[in-house]
Amino acid sequence: MSGRLIGVGVGPGDPGLLTLNAVAAIEAAPVVAYLSAEGAASLARTIVEAHLGPQHEERLLEAPMRADPEIVAAFYDAAAAGIAHDLEAGRDVALLCLGDPLLYGSFVYILDRLRDRFAFSVVPGIMSFGAAASRLGRVLARRRDSYTILSSLLPEQRLEALIEASDAVTILKVGKRLPRLKAILARQGLLETAVLVAWVGWPEERIVPLTDWPDDEEAPYFALVLAGPKP
Amino acid sequence: MSGRLIGVGVGPGDPGLLTLNAVAAIEAAPVVAYLSAEGAASLARTIVEAHLGPQHEERLLEAPMRADPEIVAAFYDAAAAGIAHDLEAGRDVALLCLGDPLLYGSFVYILDRLRDRFAFSVVPGIMSFGAAASRLGRVLARRRDSYTILSSLLPEQRLEALIEASDAVTILKVGKRLPRLKAILARQGLLETAVLVAWVGWPEERIVPLTDWPDDEEAPYFALVLAGPKP
Repeated sequence: MSGRLIGVGVGPGDPGLLTLNAVAAIEAAPVVAYLSAEGAASLARTIVEAHLGPQHEERLLEAPMRADPEIVAAFYDAAAAGIAHDLEAGRDVALLCLGDPLLYGSFVYILDRLRDRFAFSVVPGIMSFGAAASRLGRVLARRRDSYTILSSLLPEQRLEALIEASDAVTILKVGKRLPRLKAILARQGLLETAVLVAWVGWPEERIVPLTDWPDDEEAPYFALVLAGPKP
Repeated sequence: MSGRLIGVGVGPGDPGLLTLNAVAAIEAAPVVAYLSAEGAASLARTIVEAHLGPQHEERLLEAPMRADPEIVAAFYDAAAAGIAHDLEAGRDVALLCLGDPLLYGSFVYILDRLRDRFAFSVVPGIMSFGAAASRLGRVLARRRDSYTILSSLLPEQRLEALIEASDAVTILKVGKRLPRLKAILARQGLLETAVLVAWVGWPEERIVPLTDWPDDEEAPYFALVLAGPKP
């Protein structure tokens, strides 16, 4: 009988934001898999480190730094094949995912390749924008509000239209697109009250009013901006 | 010295979706407060029941059923005053909140009344739409997608505009507004693939394609609809 693929959301950084179900899924799984950026430590593994032991077989999936779609697809093909090998041998695999597995998670690309062949389940995780708002005590939405989650990878016009349409927004994965984003928020009257949160829950965490972020400093990839509602 | 107000997100229903930080905050707090609908058991208390003990003083805040704004405001004034009484006596108060405290949470209305007078912190919780997506293995957002969270209380035109603008959406607190919502989703070409999730993580949980929900049955208040992206 084949094993089960379990996508385990581990939250954005603070190990205390693991859910009880996430801890239980990790402790019970014979195989724990996680991604890392090529040559770097796996952030997801760092978050769950206290729950890993000698009973676990670990599988590091080293993702290429290059964004070339063919290289990325080949990486996911190989990663899925490796996981399929464990599943076929009857071993459950807990695949760790930063934040929530189904919201901008790399888990989705593994699931695409395996969902028709194997049983799977998902343990939801705390999303980075929720953790960021909690650090600030910043309200996300009240009764009749809308809230939109955006990636800074969206085309500029679409990004601006969605920021204009929704009461409040989070823009994720800001990185080098910060100057473009600041210009949009300024046009929308949202720059003055926007906050940048980088590496939420990590020792490197930074929380600053967006207008205080130095123009000549690139924002981290794991930075997000909370903006709106309009005053 | 005054106590601290701690907004504790307890997730939408499954006690296993409590975070380690939520459990620690509840176990450490001398006072645990929670809302209930008038005359009903507190859902938030039910979720954390295994972590409550004789060391806790419990405070039930019974919310009025009537939506009259003056009655609601008077309820929150009285609830905040009760919590302030504990805080002034130097007792930390863990205020339990379904889902996440800052996303459509009643915590926000208590925080409004106390944030200038007392130290506070927030423990983020698993949001209902994330838990619902995980039960289905339904992808929320990929790389360049937007995702919008909506309340069915939004005015109809605004609801439709936001559903049209975003790649995918969750509409929360569907209740008796389901027929109106189905009409909007049909116009947007999203009805056939939408799913209704009610009471996620509770024994009464129901997950059905939206087209299968009986037209003559009112949806629960704690039902949400996941819709999009367009095929």
